[in-house]
Amino acid sequence: MSFAPVYLDWNATTPLDDVVREAMLPWLGVGEQARFGNASSRHEYGRQARAAIDEARVRVASAVGAHATEVVFTSGGSEANNLFLKGAAGVFKPALLAISAIEHPCVREPARQLQRGGWALREIGVDAQGLVDEASWQAVLADRPRLVSVMMANNETGVVQDLARIAAQARTVGAWVHTDAVQAVGKLEVDFRTLGVHALSLSAHKIGGPLGAGALIVDKRVELTPLIAGGGQERGLRSGTENVAAIVGFGVACERARAAQAQEAQRLGALREELERGLLQCGASIFSAQAPRLPNTVFFAIGQIDGETLVAKLDRAGFACASGSACSSANPEPSHTLLAMGVERGLARAAVRISLGRDTTAEQVRAFLGALAGVTDNLRNLASVAA
Amino acid sequence: MSFAPVYLDWNATTPLDDVVREAMLPWLGVGEQARFGNASSRHEYGRQARAAIDEARVRVASAVGAHATEVVFTSGGSEANNLFLKGAAGVFKPALLAISAIEHPCVREPARQLQRGGWALREIGVDAQGLVDEASWQAVLADRPRLVSVMMANNETGVVQDLARIAAQARTVGAWVHTDAVQAVGKLEVDFRTLGVHALSLSAHKIGGPLGAGALIVDKRVELTPLIAGGGQERGLRSGTENVAAIVGFGVACERARAAQAQEAQRLGALREELERGLLQCGASIFSAQAPRLPNTVFFAIGQIDGETLVAKLDRAGFACASGSACSSANPEPSHTLLAMGVERGLARAAVRISLGRDTTAEQVRAFLGALAGVTDNLRNLASVAA
Repeated sequence: MSFAPVYLDWNATTPLDDVVREAMLPWLGVGEQARFGNASSRHEYGRQARAAIDEARVRVASAVGAHATEVVFTSGGSEANNLFLKGAAGVFKPALLAISAIEHPCVREPARQLQRGGWALREIGVDAQGLVDEASWQAVLADRPRLVSVMMANNETGVVQDLARIAAQARTVGAWVHTDAVQAVGKLEVDFRTLGVHALSLSAHKIGGPLGAGALIVDKRVELTPLIAGGGQERGLRSGTENVAAIVGFGVACERARAAQAQEAQRLGALREELERGLLQCGASIFSAQAPRLPNTVFFAIGQIDGETLVAKLDRAGFACASGSACSSANPEPSHTLLAMGVERGLARAAVRISLGRDTTAEQVRAFLGALAGVTDNLRNLASVAA
Repeated sequence: MSFAPVYLDWNATTPLDDVVREAMLPWLGVGEQARFGNASSRHEYGRQARAAIDEARVRVASAVGAHATEVVFTSGGSEANNLFLKGAAGVFKPALLAISAIEHPCVREPARQLQRGGWALREIGVDAQGLVDEASWQAVLADRPRLVSVMMANNETGVVQDLARIAAQARTVGAWVHTDAVQAVGKLEVDFRTLGVHALSLSAHKIGGPLGAGALIVDKRVELTPLIAGGGQERGLRSGTENVAAIVGFGVACERARAAQAQEAQRLGALREELERGLLQCGASIFSAQAPRLPNTVFFAIGQIDGETLVAKLDRAGFACASGSACSSANPEPSHTLLAMGVERGLARAAVRISLGRDTTAEQVRAFLGALAGVTDNLRNLASVAA
């Protein structure tokens, strides 16, 4: 890239890991091992594609402690979340669906579609730190939800829920429990059996894999109606010609993310500590600072400086970060996660997210802190001149 | 590929076009122009991704005579077909849905899901050549369908429907008309305005583009509920982080397919003529021989020789072809297209599809005919010994 700003937005998407790319390129026709094929075809080309998908399925399953037969490949995390919610709702008469108040829009929006279709929808509140609020959760449980979806780690604050406990309690009332683990994988240990959920969503591009691949890991006792029906691929749960290159890359990305997870958590945790010290010196408030969080994520505000403005200034200074979820950047509303935590709107509008990743270095963190100090001083001076 | 059989299954999928690959590689991090980004991010990485998608949108639209604002990117053709059917059904009270009897499973199966959800489903019959049967169509029209979906060109027989006429008639009763044009683009001229349909499905990997990209071209007056709801990408009609590399490749593939279409139609038409002469000499019956067909497709049977067996023998002889749609190869039933045409089951089971493409040469066609003669002689001898 001729102009390469420092990338501090790894929760939005990640550059492709070199090893992942090498595994994908043959399936894009590059090199001596160039290949292509429709995995449903009954000839050599098709068989090679099928074998590559089978291998990737084992890799993805292993990375989250699941069995290969429990992996349903999708085009990404949004599709996986929609598949679980609408697919599970499709096998029941409308009942109660419960989701946390801080879910990603690709859980909230299908939940609202189900609500329009007759389902009762309850939101599970969170406390000031962004953790599921016990009283709210017990009240929802008492109404015996049929489906429950609570994200494992929040994309904005990085807050990690005690999902094993939530799943165990939800099971006592007979609910099917789903978790959006898109931000958790590669940053935390994620084990399908230990969590005890019925289904779990993954995305490749958040962990050094390609855009265009994701999966719903789903217990075989769970019945789902397909979102994309047709040729019957993925045990009939997701039709459409399989995206071989992306699936192959997803498999390798999962394997590598799992292998590097513990060490990366330590390394990024230390970098974030340094980052947070600097932010506090800049006068920042750090959201969810007292909650268990992903090691790579910090969501903060500096006084009442508008988050969008700060992100734009930092962008011009050569640092790419986010004022919240990229997935709702079209939306001028402040973070619904912060509002659910009871953060006052003015402060929520000031929120900025930094998320670190594989290539983040201590030098980048220091350079960022330097730039941030310059930008905020500048904005404060402008504000005092205007005042 | 160390072992490279002759590929004669271009309707199943196509190898990536070299120019398409070159356009995609920077978005997979290859070369000086390496790039990545979440198109919703408000920083340099995000803006570059957004600009690339915008450019691809114009290319796709231009290739089918539509406006860029009418393009909704999806993960492929199956998703586009499901999006139209379920999305349009989502805005109406259950009414009558009519589809042709020869639709791809990714139209038939969502139609059946809608039927289970309360919609009346009628199939429009076809004649012995695989063309929409006039009497059946008029009978369906008289019942005033709300939604109509008729494929532009059949994936197995290659039969091309008179879609402009069908669309015009469907509009007279107020129906919304959709066509699956996945097999038509690049092989025929496809013009959204001339066809007069409300929506049209496309797939990248059938035209030298990558797996993982497709589109629903949709008239802006048509309202749809999203199949994948969430962050609000694609005007809210298809959420999920956009697969930039695949969308960029899709754009280039559309442009190239459109530019080469007339010349390729002539070249492949001539090759198919030679192929069909040889097939007739082998004693083949050619399905839909009297109907307008795609220039690259021939669906045939040789006596009662089982199609699966013939495909397996040809595969071993180094020729990749299909016994029908790859998308339902898991299904041991004979082609539903042929059964709808009134072909007797024994003959339908004998069907084999050859589909030609960009790299197909006269030498390959001749080599195939030689191999076919050898394989069929061998099978006939075995049969006579067994008898």
